Amino acid sequence: PQRPQKAAPIENRLPCNLADLYKGTTKKMKISREILDSYGRSMVVEEILTIDIKPGWKKGTKITFPEKGNESPHVIPADIVFVIDEKPHDLFTREGNDLVMTQKISLAEALAGCTVQVTALDGRNLTVPINNVVSPGYEEVVPREGMPIPKDPSKKGNLRIKFNIKFPSRLTSEQKSEIKRLLSS
Amino acid sequence: PQRPQKAAPIENRLPCNLADLYKGTTKKMKISREILDSYGRSMVVEEILTIDIKPGWKKGTKITFPEKGNESPHVIPADIVFVIDEKPHDLFTREGNDLVMTQKISLAEALAGCTVQVTALDGRNLTVPINNVVSPGYEEVVPREGMPIPKDPSKKGNLRIKFNIKFPSRLTSEQKSEIKRLLSS
Repeated sequence: PQRPQKAAPIENRLPCNLADLYKGTTKKMKISREILDSYGRSMVVEEILTIDIKPGWKKGTKITFPEKGNESPHVIPADIVFVIDEKPHDLFTREGNDLVMTQKISLAEALAGCTVQVTALDGRNLTVPINNVVSPGYEEVVPREGMPIPKDPSKKGNLRIKFNIKFPSRLTSEQKSEIKRLLSS
Repeated sequence: PQRPQKAAPIENRLPCNLADLYKGTTKKMKISREILDSYGRSMVVEEILTIDIKPGWKKGTKITFPEKGNESPHVIPADIVFVIDEKPHDLFTREGNDLVMTQKISLAEALAGCTVQVTALDGRNLTVPINNVVSPGYEEVVPREGMPIPKDPSKKGNLRIKFNIKFPSRLTSEQKSEIKRLLSS
């Protein structure tokens, strides 16, 4: 007798927000599937699949529920696979284990210093003082405020703050000459 | 009798510098080719191919010299094709018909104004006064100082000047407070 064939795996996207991937969470997915009873009759049942999302999981991570597809005679049911997808976040983008954000500041703040207030993905309020002169392309790195590293969630990537410096659109001649004097001294 | 086949075209890169493509020039290329004399005997001759490069020609422009490949019995000689390539320029890059350059300026110059001196591809000295506040990403457009447009070389693209603003690496507390006062007034 021929060995029964296995149906091709069924993949589903599982969109997760960044806070869920930061903290970890449990998602329950209800599926409907046909099973065969002991007489070989097909019936539809609902099942709950529980997915334990670990802190730091990345887009593309796959969770497989073996043979949770429809049952039918002479075929091994398909595996049901969930593929983690990352929903865009308003403030942060993820680069590997780092979180990256862009803060808009005025030129005065870029030169004279400022403080950036950030709400972390677990809700904590971070206060980041910027003491260096912020030039275009400058990044303030806040250690260990990035995403958890899945292999060791006690470790974390960094938070990298980029800056969008808003220049004044026009300056008076007095402002111009004062700036010249000030910056060349 | 079978029609004689034609040999596959032979392509050669023709690297040109941007000034040549701006002004137009004539390039003479010496080639060695085998020809058949009237008795069908093969001999090697040298020929000069003259390429008239028109102002504004772009990378990828092809110039074909029909049947200038080697002669051999029962085959139509190959076409010799030259393909214009653009050598990198120290100052300008080409974007379509525009020339783009990046000028390094100090923050004081960005705010208080400055003058950019540019040597055009035909050797003219251009003086470009910058009166607007230069913020990161600002482009000063100098009309008609880009590349000639091949279809109508009396027309030209634009010269676009981008800026790399050098911020002071550190400021004293006095400078910081003066800047704050100055830019918020």
